[in-house]
Amino acid sequence: MTDTNPEYLAPLQDMHFLLQEMQANTDTNNEDLLFVLEQAARFAERELAPINALGDSQGCTLKDGQVTLPPKMKAAFQSYAQAGWMGLSMPEQWGGQDLPETLAACVGEILTAANHAFSMTPALTMSACRAIMGYGTDELKQTYLSKMIAGTWTGTMCMTESHCGSDLGLIRSSAQPTSDGHYSIKGNKIFISAGSQDASDNIIHLVLARVKDAPKGIKGLSLFLVPAKLQDDSGQWIAPNQVSCIGIEEKMGIHANPTCSMAFEGSTGYLIGKENQGINAMFAMMNEMRLGTAMQGVGLSERSFQKSLSYAKDRTQMRSLSGVKAKDKEADPIIHHPDVRRMLLTQKVFAQGGRALGQFCAQLLDETQQDGSKESQMLLDMLTPIAKGFCTEMGLESASHAIQIHGGHGFVKESGVEQLYRDGRIATLYEGTTGIQALDLLGRKVLGTQGKSLMVFTKMMHTLCKENEDNQQQAALLTELKKYSKQWPELTMQLGGKAMKNPDEVGAASFDYLMYSGYVTLAYFWARMAITSQQLLNSKRDGKQTAKSATVNEEFLKGKIANATFYFERILPRAEAHRLSMMTGWHNLQNI
Amino acid sequence: MTDTNPEYLAPLQDMHFLLQEMQANTDTNNEDLLFVLEQAARFAERELAPINALGDSQGCTLKDGQVTLPPKMKAAFQSYAQAGWMGLSMPEQWGGQDLPETLAACVGEILTAANHAFSMTPALTMSACRAIMGYGTDELKQTYLSKMIAGTWTGTMCMTESHCGSDLGLIRSSAQPTSDGHYSIKGNKIFISAGSQDASDNIIHLVLARVKDAPKGIKGLSLFLVPAKLQDDSGQWIAPNQVSCIGIEEKMGIHANPTCSMAFEGSTGYLIGKENQGINAMFAMMNEMRLGTAMQGVGLSERSFQKSLSYAKDRTQMRSLSGVKAKDKEADPIIHHPDVRRMLLTQKVFAQGGRALGQFCAQLLDETQQDGSKESQMLLDMLTPIAKGFCTEMGLESASHAIQIHGGHGFVKESGVEQLYRDGRIATLYEGTTGIQALDLLGRKVLGTQGKSLMVFTKMMHTLCKENEDNQQQAALLTELKKYSKQWPELTMQLGGKAMKNPDEVGAASFDYLMYSGYVTLAYFWARMAITSQQLLNSKRDGKQTAKSATVNEEFLKGKIANATFYFERILPRAEAHRLSMMTGWHNLQNI
Repeated sequence: MTDTNPEYLAPLQDMHFLLQEMQANTDTNNEDLLFVLEQAARFAERELAPINALGDSQGCTLKDGQVTLPPKMKAAFQSYAQAGWMGLSMPEQWGGQDLPETLAACVGEILTAANHAFSMTPALTMSACRAIMGYGTDELKQTYLSKMIAGTWTGTMCMTESHCGSDLGLIRSSAQPTSDGHYSIKGNKIFISAGSQDASDNIIHLVLARVKDAPKGIKGLSLFLVPAKLQDDSGQWIAPNQVSCIGIEEKMGIHANPTCSMAFEGSTGYLIGKENQGINAMFAMMNEMRLGTAMQGVGLSERSFQKSLSYAKDRTQMRSLSGVKAKDKEADPIIHHPDVRRMLLTQKVFAQGGRALGQFCAQLLDETQQDGSKESQMLLDMLTPIAKGFCTEMGLESASHAIQIHGGHGFVKESGVEQLYRDGRIATLYEGTTGIQALDLLGRKVLGTQGKSLMVFTKMMHTLCKENEDNQQQAALLTELKKYSKQWPELTMQLGGKAMKNPDEVGAASFDYLMYSGYVTLAYFWARMAITSQQLLNSKRDGKQTAKSATVNEEFLKGKIANATFYFERILPRAEAHRLSMMTGWHNLQNI
Repeated sequence: MTDTNPEYLAPLQDMHFLLQEMQANTDTNNEDLLFVLEQAARFAERELAPINALGDSQGCTLKDGQVTLPPKMKAAFQSYAQAGWMGLSMPEQWGGQDLPETLAACVGEILTAANHAFSMTPALTMSACRAIMGYGTDELKQTYLSKMIAGTWTGTMCMTESHCGSDLGLIRSSAQPTSDGHYSIKGNKIFISAGSQDASDNIIHLVLARVKDAPKGIKGLSLFLVPAKLQDDSGQWIAPNQVSCIGIEEKMGIHANPTCSMAFEGSTGYLIGKENQGINAMFAMMNEMRLGTAMQGVGLSERSFQKSLSYAKDRTQMRSLSGVKAKDKEADPIIHHPDVRRMLLTQKVFAQGGRALGQFCAQLLDETQQDGSKESQMLLDMLTPIAKGFCTEMGLESASHAIQIHGGHGFVKESGVEQLYRDGRIATLYEGTTGIQALDLLGRKVLGTQGKSLMVFTKMMHTLCKENEDNQQQAALLTELKKYSKQWPELTMQLGGKAMKNPDEVGAASFDYLMYSGYVTLAYFWARMAITSQQLLNSKRDGKQTAKSATVNEEFLKGKIANATFYFERILPRAEAHRLSMMTGWHNLQNI
């Protein structure tokens, strides 16, 4: 990394646009927020991005039940925690800074774009804190939250067992009440990110297990807090709790974050919430993790775009079909080739469109954490699987374009883009695969609410079109958007009808439905961004009030409008392919 | 690997179908061919598939200019060569077996599906032989061909330099005539597959270089044969020729095949063909390699399908939405979930559809190598970039589905599918990226022939529809195919018109045009396969002549028809998205 060609620069300009120009109710002076955002950006750019490749090549090692992180990853985590970043959106009561989720979403994206492997432990720790805050006893809160938010202790989610991933109902780990009012936890868990590492003093595992004679399935699961180390008689947290890491996975990517197999052999566990209601607390964690994972997809698109753009400006190869562009060079920079531009723009509209969706979800999260309406909650519930499923799939596509733009060099480790491709591949798998998100969206969130959640969103689409009926400049986009605002509920009704006759029709349509929903949802946000940009440009032309943010300049706004056109013309047509596919039904899936 | 759950089984049934039922002129008894095919299958299944993961984890090492292969890869190559597989479709004159390209395409697919890294060296060596046969002097042929075809010597293609990949005109390597009538070659080449290895006694490099004062660009390139070792005074091939491997790439995949940086420091080179006409010989090699690479994409889809199918039958997770399927288990095998079936079928239709396209190209190759018409050559020229570009892209998608079907386990090395994903990623890059194939297709092959090559193919589509006008059973497929047989030339004319005004319109449409062409081309082959299968089923019902192949049974034929429906209903709609995108044009690519 050099100053002239940094590995990664946080997309502050676009974040300013979203935080300051796109939010309905941002009359408040949020200079403080922007200052915090800038500090996060500097940290990620200077401390995290430069060690990303090193962490990948060094990986983690397991010896005698203890995992060692790559040394610079360990140091970076500790410096991150000491700077107080862990508790950004956590309550001040426990040492957090109580800043909004909109800001946390930006910071989350920045962290993951700079260093995917790094970003996981803070995110998981904060999710564990949310479960403790939401469902834990006061004693548990008092004992654990401050230390976890300070990052001296970290947290994990222990759900998966070797025979059950998506199907938590199959969990076999057991919890036996003990004489002192706690539980003895026994069982093996796999795929536990940072289940063991040497960057924090203690690791607080949240473990799903089954109390004896509990009902079968997920209604018999309870959640337990199981520290790796307990307090000894002298008050020190050094007494072993029969929790050990018995293996780490050799995997395709995120080498700098250990994926652990954990054994709980009579470990002391503390019940979080009530017996047999563990799944509620777990889902609360999981929904937040899903939004976080969506931002990983966005960050992957952004990082892929940046690396590709930089390479495309630099690398010369062949002359432009429309004539020589760089007379002083023996070939033209490949950014002049239309197909390279197509790939760059695809990455860019996924990054910026996904970021707008993520920001909107974060706003809803802020609202629902305060006094949000039922509508806000329903909308957030519906948009979460779209954001997670769609943005992570688009992240993979962006990373693949990055390799393609780099040509053969993209296949070589030195380019750095193959690591993005490998690391990012996890995002469509963990926190529920794309297929699981799709079933959640169509089955539970849309059909399960008789389409009410969907109508909240399509009404927003409709309103946007209505409010801008006279907008000549964005008429093409709005006409298209209006079409989808009608088509989406219509096809949902048709699917609902088919599903009543045969439940397998839901699974037969769900993936295409998710992707359709993703493309249409991003179209809404691209239309809004174009309209806002146009308004700001018009205001400036008319000498009226212009952008609140100093970084949002004319070039940026014009770019937004042009990129919206690219999105509508080049990307949105994919929704049509998914519509055609999803409407065909279960019958063509019968013969494999 | 166990016998009950093999790593890979060659898809002989489908190959029999293509070789025996789908070829117009196979009255000849080709039992011999099928015997050879079966032997190739056994070799790949027993010797290559089982060492695929080991080769990946061991990788190659470079020491003192000499690369060492993973020991079992070296042994496998030598056993392959000794068994006479190298020269399968090579002339008997030089020790080959002179078998048709249709068979060689099957064998090529089998090799790459079993072990991608292994398959590269034989393929490159045979391509080098083709260039020597087509353009070399008798002396060169006498000296090199037999040994290369025996596999005691191997071959490479040395084109790329660090500053030029797609743009061969930028090549700087130089060739200086020597007093003895040869040339002294100087320059550095990168990305040379198997540029150094320890499995063969000598390595014959075909090197593109520039003779002093040659014209600029590709018209100044000459092709040279540069052996790593020369004959010494005693007649032994052990004299060093100033050719050295100065580095091997650390890359994402194909670890068992070394990607070498080669230095030629005054190496003795022998001109192949004429000075400044090297590109012709190189293109001859490259076209064959592109078809071979297409089969790598097909093999990747097949292997991904097989591994996914086996896992999906075995892995239990959640109950089917339409009710319990496996009462004796605590959850249903995931193959019962419609979205898993969608992914499996997608892999399957890419494998079998791509295989049919590859077989057709191989037939054309057989024809053109004998006394093919100009039409056959034009058709082959046009289908080559489609096969290469489309089938490799679809291979990546299939491998990605394999990971998705395996869930989190797919990200772990042990599953084996992440290796497919990494290894296969090279196929859309080497032998010309997808973007290069797309430009070749639309710019050179289609618009460059004023659409004549395309008309040869769309006429075939039209004829198929016409001949089956009364086919009620496949009417839905044929109606759709007929639509595309008209739409494809129409939109090509429109693009041609735009390109006359602005050449950048070609690049702006080319990728979508390639993908559109790929989806439509596979639709043609799926329709043909469905029609043939239906005919065979009808014949059997009517007590008439049935399938020539014993392995092509009723279940297989019914499956073909059902899978064709899946292709037309679920996959072909993507062509529409590409059509919509490609017709928008250059204007939306201007603002990045």
